[in-house]
Amino acid sequence: MMKEVLINFLSQFKELASAQIEELVELMTVKQVPKNTLIVKPGQICNLCYFVLKGCLRQFVSNDGIEKTTAFYVEQEAVNFFTNQPKPATSFLASVEDSVLLIGQPEQDQYFYEKFPELATITRRMIEADLGKTQANLAKFITSSPKERYLNLLEERPDLLQRVPQHMIASYLGMTPESLSRIRRRIVHKKPPK
Amino acid sequence: MMKEVLINFLSQFKELASAQIEELVELMTVKQVPKNTLIVKPGQICNLCYFVLKGCLRQFVSNDGIEKTTAFYVEQEAVNFFTNQPKPATSFLASVEDSVLLIGQPEQDQYFYEKFPELATITRRMIEADLGKTQANLAKFITSSPKERYLNLLEERPDLLQRVPQHMIASYLGMTPESLSRIRRRIVHKKPPK
Repeated sequence: MMKEVLINFLSQFKELASAQIEELVELMTVKQVPKNTLIVKPGQICNLCYFVLKGCLRQFVSNDGIEKTTAFYVEQEAVNFFTNQPKPATSFLASVEDSVLLIGQPEQDQYFYEKFPELATITRRMIEADLGKTQANLAKFITSSPKERYLNLLEERPDLLQRVPQHMIASYLGMTPESLSRIRRRIVHKKPPK
Repeated sequence: MMKEVLINFLSQFKELASAQIEELVELMTVKQVPKNTLIVKPGQICNLCYFVLKGCLRQFVSNDGIEKTTAFYVEQEAVNFFTNQPKPATSFLASVEDSVLLIGQPEQDQYFYEKFPELATITRRMIEADLGKTQANLAKFITSSPKERYLNLLEERPDLLQRVPQHMIASYLGMTPESLSRIRRRIVHKKPPK
């Protein structure tokens, strides 16, 4: 099953020949993670990259037992812990759904890029796009009210609202689950018929 | 002067031979931007990457004439507008200081990476580290109060506090310039002697 998910992912890139894909599938590190598994803990030195092939991950901090969600990652999104100087993680990373992850490791990745130069280009483009998106997200977050954040989410990542428990969404938006329910009810009532 | 800044930047990478650096300096697009120059406006379709060789850039939005700063970028930091589908910019980008920028353009970059494979590796590593940093920043921002944001800034980017006008810092932290002055005064008084 894991192999199939990886083959499907790699097959979208026309630059990779099928022989290369077969070879990569044998070499790459893929990990199956059941729902609600803790992957990284604060304080842990982690120099990996977790790329979601299937499923959903959540990043959060916990202050006095109160969890605050800081990010969700779904298919084809990556949580990147690569830095020049590895530092202890400052938040938790856990699965929200049964997930399949492609694990990036600096030395192994470097070997892949030398052996498969096409993969280096593909990865660079994905990371560039990801950086642009993350920078834009940060800007949008800083300038939005909790309600505006909900409307953004509804427009840009409607799938998340279906997949993730409501209390996690509320904590990500910076509101109580009750406020989120209230806003959702109001929006459903206002929606013009299509 | 611009050439010198670029040579200095490229020379830090031992993987690049001096002949390669000379060639790159002739080919790369570098732009000198005086202080307080508007570089990108909301609505503009921009598919470039602005890498700061020297100086400081600021990203902000303006609602009814009130500016809200969303990011600062100094030496060796990049504002990335590369995406799979170019979208209109949602914020302003302007220089805070006289700046020298290295301009990334997808097709030109691709040409460089084919001609100078070492540069592809260098760039990928920088973008990976940048992505990790931006993701961590977003998480930290979401979970911090304005005062905690100031303390983070003081610890992690003390240079910014010296280089950027106070009202811009305050707007970045989500507080009034008066609150920022108050917090700064309190911290100066509390500081234990070293």
